[in-house]
Amino acid sequence: MAKGGRSQESGEDRLIARYFKPLAQHPAALGLADDAACLTPPKSHDLVLTVDAVVAGVHFLPDDPPASIARKALRVNLSDLAAKGATPLGFLLTLALPPNTDAKFLKPFAKALAQDARVYGCPVLGGDTTGTPGPLTISITAFGTVPHGKMVRRQGARPGDLVMVTGTIGDAALGLRLSQRAGLATQWRLKRGQGAFLVERYREPQPRHALAEAVRRYASAAMDVSDGLAGDLAKLCRASNVSAVAEATQVPLSPAASVALATKPDLFETILTGGDDYEILCTVPRARAARFSAAAKAAGVPLTTIGRIEAGRADMAPGEARFVDANGQPLRFVRGSFSHFG
Amino acid sequence: MAKGGRSQESGEDRLIARYFKPLAQHPAALGLADDAACLTPPKSHDLVLTVDAVVAGVHFLPDDPPASIARKALRVNLSDLAAKGATPLGFLLTLALPPNTDAKFLKPFAKALAQDARVYGCPVLGGDTTGTPGPLTISITAFGTVPHGKMVRRQGARPGDLVMVTGTIGDAALGLRLSQRAGLATQWRLKRGQGAFLVERYREPQPRHALAEAVRRYASAAMDVSDGLAGDLAKLCRASNVSAVAEATQVPLSPAASVALATKPDLFETILTGGDDYEILCTVPRARAARFSAAAKAAGVPLTTIGRIEAGRADMAPGEARFVDANGQPLRFVRGSFSHFG
Repeated sequence: MAKGGRSQESGEDRLIARYFKPLAQHPAALGLADDAACLTPPKSHDLVLTVDAVVAGVHFLPDDPPASIARKALRVNLSDLAAKGATPLGFLLTLALPPNTDAKFLKPFAKALAQDARVYGCPVLGGDTTGTPGPLTISITAFGTVPHGKMVRRQGARPGDLVMVTGTIGDAALGLRLSQRAGLATQWRLKRGQGAFLVERYREPQPRHALAEAVRRYASAAMDVSDGLAGDLAKLCRASNVSAVAEATQVPLSPAASVALATKPDLFETILTGGDDYEILCTVPRARAARFSAAAKAAGVPLTTIGRIEAGRADMAPGEARFVDANGQPLRFVRGSFSHFG
Repeated sequence: MAKGGRSQESGEDRLIARYFKPLAQHPAALGLADDAACLTPPKSHDLVLTVDAVVAGVHFLPDDPPASIARKALRVNLSDLAAKGATPLGFLLTLALPPNTDAKFLKPFAKALAQDARVYGCPVLGGDTTGTPGPLTISITAFGTVPHGKMVRRQGARPGDLVMVTGTIGDAALGLRLSQRAGLATQWRLKRGQGAFLVERYREPQPRHALAEAVRRYASAAMDVSDGLAGDLAKLCRASNVSAVAEATQVPLSPAASVALATKPDLFETILTGGDDYEILCTVPRARAARFSAAAKAAGVPLTTIGRIEAGRADMAPGEARFVDANGQPLRFVRGSFSHFG
């Protein structure tokens, strides 16, 4: 130990100062200059709290563009908020960075995060940065607000409700397979640009925040589709203690997914169980369905009715979600719901 | 794709149900059966939000007991809340689990987390579980409450304030070195049990929640000591735009640390810069110091005055934190503040 001088600022402090302080515009963030954020909650509102982690090699590919990684990390959480009918308020960011993570990664990463924070009205409130000997891991805790008592739950679906889903299903799962194996786009007979479209759907979820208020007003139950439509509909049914029948032919597909499916019909299992869709799955009482559809149209969000919630059918267990083919015959999936664990 | 049946429940769902649902007693957690927690914030209070991640091999040793890992992961966050004067409200848990993480790890991990949740009044509100090809990584977002406007900041220290610290400093840093090299306890001439004491101080922080209310009432600025006393005092000074002089001989040491230091005087740098103390560092106006000390005594929390905040001294830069020896000569640290990154 030598004498004189002061202790130096750490690498973590410099990193935060350079790349993340410019993002901290919300007063609760205290300029990222404190140990904690301090949030004055809006009156008469509940806070909706969600956390999702993404890990290189598990939720994104290690060579995905840094901007895409940033967007995915934040948007999987924004997707949860939208499905709960919540308005984004802000987020906390945990970064576990592998050795030698440098400005070439951090600069576009922070820039994309700042853009999304602006677009979705969801500024950074705080965070933690650490090193890791493992893969890049990003955990984001996002906060949203709903008027008191108005968060849309997974439970709440009632017999007779329609089962509806936004956007198109299966694109991301197909995009992941394309990313992992060269030549697949040709095998699937995809047209120009369709392969890139599917890969982009995997890399960058599009949270359906434009529909959040309508979900809050009209849906009886909702969740985002992250682990595959088939498994997630089953989860919603279990939470609501109802069963559901969905028609496979009604599941909305993008032109790219339709081409792939026409070439390889067994891709339908990937489409229904592959996950990473980040669309909203919800149930809506019939009496409100027309108003919900009109609100979706006004918001520019595609919305499709794929099935209905059943009253106690003797041939279905409570909590069962059944997909049927054009002849009304149930489909069974070999892999079941996609799981990030186990 | 075969016909008939329903999609199976995922491994992640089973894991959460078995080990973590029993912890979800708070109504905001919704039994961990939804995508998000829903918190009705207490009236006239602010929410204090903090997040800290711990990574195997970085913040704890891979063969530390699962219960210790759980306690460290939660308590580093509870320590932040205490230093901000906040009362714990609940937490969100993100687990990134290596392959083959089994009940042998998860059962004692969840049990210890449940115990701490009860002891500190900080129940789980939600979370996310994922696999990782890397090391076990645990990110916890903790929520606390303070009466509106009363969170204690890093900024706020004024010339003339006393610099105070709870407990003893350096134990955890010495404990880490003991964990990493056999025979060191003998070299340091530690007495029976002193080595184990220091290792335990590394493994299991003791958040000073008992002092939170007094910090809120009496401290002008506060933070927890996680990256080393020397560096953290400098951070507090920079945030407050003041400078500080602390007396090295006043830094409170445990009997174990005192023995080690008497044998190897150069361990003083490790003690002051090693980090992982999770004690509260705060500044207190002189007029309130006696009441603060009395409150600490009543709460059973050891408290030591180690220095003072300086008015503009010509020989000190704003933001400088200087430790001086018994002759008033400044010490300089070679490594500077401990950093988990870079």
